[in-house]
Amino acid sequence: MSGWQRWLAEQAEEREAAGLTRRLRERRLDETGLDLAGNDYLGLAQHPEVRQAAAEAAVAWGAGASASRLVSGTLSLHAELETELAGYLRQPTALVLSTGYHANLAVVTALADRDTRIISDAHIHASLIDAVRLSRARLSVVAHNAVGAVRDALLQARADGERALILVESVYSVLGDAAPLEELAALAEQFGALLVVDEAHGVGVHGAGLVATLGLAGLPHVVVSATLSKSLGAQGGAILGPAAVREQLVNRARPFIFDTGLAPAPTAGALAALRVIRGRPELGALVRHRVQQLAAALAVPAPAGAVLSVPLGSPAIALAAQAAAAGRGLRVGCFRPPSVPDGVSRLRVTASAGIGEVDWQHAVATLVDVVKEHR
Amino acid sequence: MSGWQRWLAEQAEEREAAGLTRRLRERRLDETGLDLAGNDYLGLAQHPEVRQAAAEAAVAWGAGASASRLVSGTLSLHAELETELAGYLRQPTALVLSTGYHANLAVVTALADRDTRIISDAHIHASLIDAVRLSRARLSVVAHNAVGAVRDALLQARADGERALILVESVYSVLGDAAPLEELAALAEQFGALLVVDEAHGVGVHGAGLVATLGLAGLPHVVVSATLSKSLGAQGGAILGPAAVREQLVNRARPFIFDTGLAPAPTAGALAALRVIRGRPELGALVRHRVQQLAAALAVPAPAGAVLSVPLGSPAIALAAQAAAAGRGLRVGCFRPPSVPDGVSRLRVTASAGIGEVDWQHAVATLVDVVKEHR
Repeated sequence: MSGWQRWLAEQAEEREAAGLTRRLRERRLDETGLDLAGNDYLGLAQHPEVRQAAAEAAVAWGAGASASRLVSGTLSLHAELETELAGYLRQPTALVLSTGYHANLAVVTALADRDTRIISDAHIHASLIDAVRLSRARLSVVAHNAVGAVRDALLQARADGERALILVESVYSVLGDAAPLEELAALAEQFGALLVVDEAHGVGVHGAGLVATLGLAGLPHVVVSATLSKSLGAQGGAILGPAAVREQLVNRARPFIFDTGLAPAPTAGALAALRVIRGRPELGALVRHRVQQLAAALAVPAPAGAVLSVPLGSPAIALAAQAAAAGRGLRVGCFRPPSVPDGVSRLRVTASAGIGEVDWQHAVATLVDVVKEHR
Repeated sequence: MSGWQRWLAEQAEEREAAGLTRRLRERRLDETGLDLAGNDYLGLAQHPEVRQAAAEAAVAWGAGASASRLVSGTLSLHAELETELAGYLRQPTALVLSTGYHANLAVVTALADRDTRIISDAHIHASLIDAVRLSRARLSVVAHNAVGAVRDALLQARADGERALILVESVYSVLGDAAPLEELAALAEQFGALLVVDEAHGVGVHGAGLVATLGLAGLPHVVVSATLSKSLGAQGGAILGPAAVREQLVNRARPFIFDTGLAPAPTAGALAALRVIRGRPELGALVRHRVQQLAAALAVPAPAGAVLSVPLGSPAIALAAQAAAAGRGLRVGCFRPPSVPDGVSRLRVTASAGIGEVDWQHAVATLVDVVKEHR
């Protein structure tokens, strides 16, 4: 047994002992039960018009974009999606990337360098943490949603002559709470800083997202990262903001330059989903209503997004509750370390608008029972 | 004008002055001319069966996978692709990720840590360089294809008690030359190291790839990274190797854990392309024949892959040659800094098997003229 084999075996044993082994469970096409685990917040991945648009694009354009966006992999389909996405989110420009992870790596690494101070919220997503590490910027991690601490870091950056970049999410993934975007945008303007907001969980659930809803879209000091794989039901990500930011990304963002363009089918799927969202603002309203209803039933704080977190303590209890839900026909998720900011394992329930009302009420009642049995 | 706006303007001016501004050119559906710029080496992105399979998957499964592979985003379609891909590449297991970039980030960051010495070839792809930076491993960059230097670094790693990981590509992107895989695999075995081979440009052009062709597939000390967006015509990447490596990635690779699963359409597209490749080994042979023919006509060394590099010197000359080819109906690419290892700008021509013979001969004759005018 080589050193590598021994190390891999030890890693597996440690995970198993800590109850943290992750196993992939295959979803089959003929599967029954309700999916409250995914991020298809508005049910649009399964919408007939979205499926059809994706299928037609695969036939018309082929299965892949065949090259980097910079070589011959920019399709007029990408441009169409970028124009409509920017229009809906009220931003001057959009740049589509092949995953949301790529979008976050791209925006941070293209904008931040050794002369930059990144001021990041303690709860930002793994992709943003990796992005910061790649950027070589100096980093100030501030306590979650602590505006005063952001201000202090901005003062320090000004004293040190650094360009400051504030990195937050509009709605946080695990706790589901919202960022104080108006205060942060005001600080960014005051200090000549750039505010980068990840709207992965905001767009769709809050229509054009919280940045747009709060009137902060199109400001020269606000940049948005959006994902095409949650409310937009497809795959990919996008960066929205001033033309000069897009130009910088096209030229400097390695995860954009050295990657094949997003495949035609998910590009067209996201575009079709965007058109559905524009025409049916009630979808976002339904998700927000449902998540509040579920939060009240389970006596936990209502989140700003579509995902409800139910703290249960240990990974073993969370897994047992998840299994109990599955036994009753409900697929829900589980937050376990390292995906939680505080070590507390949780059930993770998506209040999707894609579920019929009778099924949804059944799901709420079932979850009340399951959580009662495991708290 | 804020500090950010000034900085972005300066960056744009510097690029423009250096002739390095990159502009996106949209490909339209009705475009004529020959595409010798993309990475659809075998022409399979456009193959009727591949398009059809992608379209059917979008209709059956929806536009997106809707969740991380670890939550509810693993489809039986992913499992089917992983089984067939592992079978064709003669590896025990495969794990599909949503881009080739993700695959490279995942394999390196899940395997290497502070106790690891990464020994990387000087010409590895940007995604592997970023992966190394994220991993926090110690790094020894060795001269391109210098086996002796790899051996020295392995001796050093042994002396320092580090796990050693050798990072190479089977066929390099810009120069197009092949790695000395047999010698490297022998060294890895001798030193208890792990050899990680990026087969982005090897699979398809060399059938199951150079690792398999050389009889190195399935060895416990060899891991392969493959892309689904070049010869396989779709989008995504995969890591192939021992089950313990796959298990480690599922549990520790952040670009796998914190990302939405690959969309159904490109997953099915890659699977259909794989089946075409298995049934038509002459496709790879045709690409290899064409690239040799073109290299001879242009009096440059023949590459091991499908992409021919024609050194032309400055970015301006390379761009002028590219424009001249475009004026005569040929879309070719351009390698410019920072995408070249030596500062020399080049034309980049793909000898795709997807082009008819008459068109191909016309392309060769045209390129001979264009290169003569710009050398």
